[in-house]
Amino acid sequence: MSADERRVTIAAIADAAGVSVPTVSRVLNGRADVSTATRERVEQLLRDRGYRRRNSRQPGRAQILDVVFDALDSPWAVELIRGVADVAHAAGAGTVVSAVHQDETATRQWLRNLRSRTCDGVIFVLAEPSAPIHTQLRRLHIPVVVIDPPSNHPAAVRPTLPAALAAGVATVGATNWAGGLSATEHLIALGHRRIGLIAGPRALSCSRARLDGYRAALAAAGIGLDAGLVVQGDFQHESGYVAGGRLLDLAEPPTAVFATSDQMALGVYEAARRRGLRVPADLSVAGFDDLPEARWSAPPLTTVRQPLAEMGGLAAHTVLRLARGETLQAPRVELATELVVRHSTAPVTSRSPRSGR
Amino acid sequence: MSADERRVTIAAIADAAGVSVPTVSRVLNGRADVSTATRERVEQLLRDRGYRRRNSRQPGRAQILDVVFDALDSPWAVELIRGVADVAHAAGAGTVVSAVHQDETATRQWLRNLRSRTCDGVIFVLAEPSAPIHTQLRRLHIPVVVIDPPSNHPAAVRPTLPAALAAGVATVGATNWAGGLSATEHLIALGHRRIGLIAGPRALSCSRARLDGYRAALAAAGIGLDAGLVVQGDFQHESGYVAGGRLLDLAEPPTAVFATSDQMALGVYEAARRRGLRVPADLSVAGFDDLPEARWSAPPLTTVRQPLAEMGGLAAHTVLRLARGETLQAPRVELATELVVRHSTAPVTSRSPRSGR
Repeated sequence: MSADERRVTIAAIADAAGVSVPTVSRVLNGRADVSTATRERVEQLLRDRGYRRRNSRQPGRAQILDVVFDALDSPWAVELIRGVADVAHAAGAGTVVSAVHQDETATRQWLRNLRSRTCDGVIFVLAEPSAPIHTQLRRLHIPVVVIDPPSNHPAAVRPTLPAALAAGVATVGATNWAGGLSATEHLIALGHRRIGLIAGPRALSCSRARLDGYRAALAAAGIGLDAGLVVQGDFQHESGYVAGGRLLDLAEPPTAVFATSDQMALGVYEAARRRGLRVPADLSVAGFDDLPEARWSAPPLTTVRQPLAEMGGLAAHTVLRLARGETLQAPRVELATELVVRHSTAPVTSRSPRSGR
Repeated sequence: MSADERRVTIAAIADAAGVSVPTVSRVLNGRADVSTATRERVEQLLRDRGYRRRNSRQPGRAQILDVVFDALDSPWAVELIRGVADVAHAAGAGTVVSAVHQDETATRQWLRNLRSRTCDGVIFVLAEPSAPIHTQLRRLHIPVVVIDPPSNHPAAVRPTLPAALAAGVATVGATNWAGGLSATEHLIALGHRRIGLIAGPRALSCSRARLDGYRAALAAAGIGLDAGLVVQGDFQHESGYVAGGRLLDLAEPPTAVFATSDQMALGVYEAARRRGLRVPADLSVAGFDDLPEARWSAPPLTTVRQPLAEMGGLAAHTVLRLARGETLQAPRVELATELVVRHSTAPVTSRSPRSGR
């Protein structure tokens, strides 16, 4: 059977469902003026027969990708946007950037806008679409890719995550575990034994992986995990400042801190500065991200580089392939991280004021 | 006469031009398959009679704003995007973000994409559309707003700027002159007399205004301008590092440097650090922008805050008003800047190693 013969037409679906062609179109376009029973029957047939919108899509391609952030409040957002926009641009598509602020009303508003203009694919950053949003996007036949998704541990914080979503959505990330491991190994190799960790948001799988990499490096070096040295942050500067202060004010403070974002690492710099501690002579600090500011911080920050622009580009490639109806061999991809050693980490010396264990 | 009676229809234009209604539509949609003579006649009539696409626009509103950057390579881009996206979102519109890299091919590709999906308005950042692009946008009846436009001094670097463009485009900026003045006055008030300046790209009017503010403050204080203390930069970290190094290596170096972007100021930090100079004990440094990293630099940077998100929001408001056919009372707006004094500036002391005259 040739590809042409295999092609499923709207007319055939309408025929099988016992409805008109315009009704099938209405279902395909996600419109509300179709009864639930009819919609479900038609959607079942579309799935069963593997309908792809090749005919209607090719000329009617929206030439738009959507990137949905929770908030546009970090320099790493611009790195991701650049990666997505470059690939979209090369494919003749525009990149719509939105921030929905974890707000269901804002998300619905975004979806209304999307429906008014259509779209070829959606990239969610650090968030997954809620079940109703995901259902609507599926009805509109708009593919989804998630960059740095929430944790997919089954027993995790979001038990309401729809199973289909947890199982079936393509994701792009970085090798966060390996990055957490390499930063911690680097500090251990410099002689540090009391190494503080400032974690990112618990709900994100990238946070958990970085923390697990830290734990694995300690275990491999035979260093017991001190729960008092692990402090919660939220990836932003301020939380690094607060968490860094808590670590430095411990009776037995760490000689090194691994902050799992560059912004938190710069917050630790400030906490150290306020206490008269010099980085790295009195305190080693490592970050995660390698934002442009990491290289220009004083001192330049040792950090784990994640290839943000490449991650954005890969997400755009992936969602464009899905929009063309291609099947992914590897729906979950992690790009390599790399430790970049600069001047914020140094061997433990006698100058470390409270370097003991 | 009521608004309805005043409304100019496509049919009336077609009638007056002696062409068909579809021909007028083709002109309105910027299509190429219309003779030059016909296009010009129809466009003249559309202008003369004040045609507004209310009928065709209202239901067919693209619900999209375009923001065109030269490059997405700075944290301030995300601040502007946030401002635009918030206002667009509230108006039910999406925000398409593009980077055209000063490349005419990339710009044409962007315009092709825009035409395939339409758009309600375009915001150019730090750049003006070239004359051909501007002509095409005018044909498509898509309004334009420019944030931080190239210099509009008549004798400036871009003599090819179309006169219509120089005269008629709405712009949004910040009070760059006042900002340059206040940063320099602050350094003078601390006792500095040899104040280095690192300028931004010559072609941008925001760069020229900051430099002029510096000159005005010196003149008001009776300090002669030393051309050797004014060094060219490009707003990026690296150029601040290089320019800062040049200033610090002068036979008679400055005791303070006003870098006209935060990123260049952090480059100066690094140049000072490499020379064993402490900020602010040995060298005062002031920046411009107040990016998030300014607050978290070591030491926290004294800088001139420009309200980037508000500028993006105002540009979005303005272009949406133009899309509705409204007339602007003030097509060129500057939002206020504000000096934020942190810890990178201090009085000249005997500790300044080569504190000059």
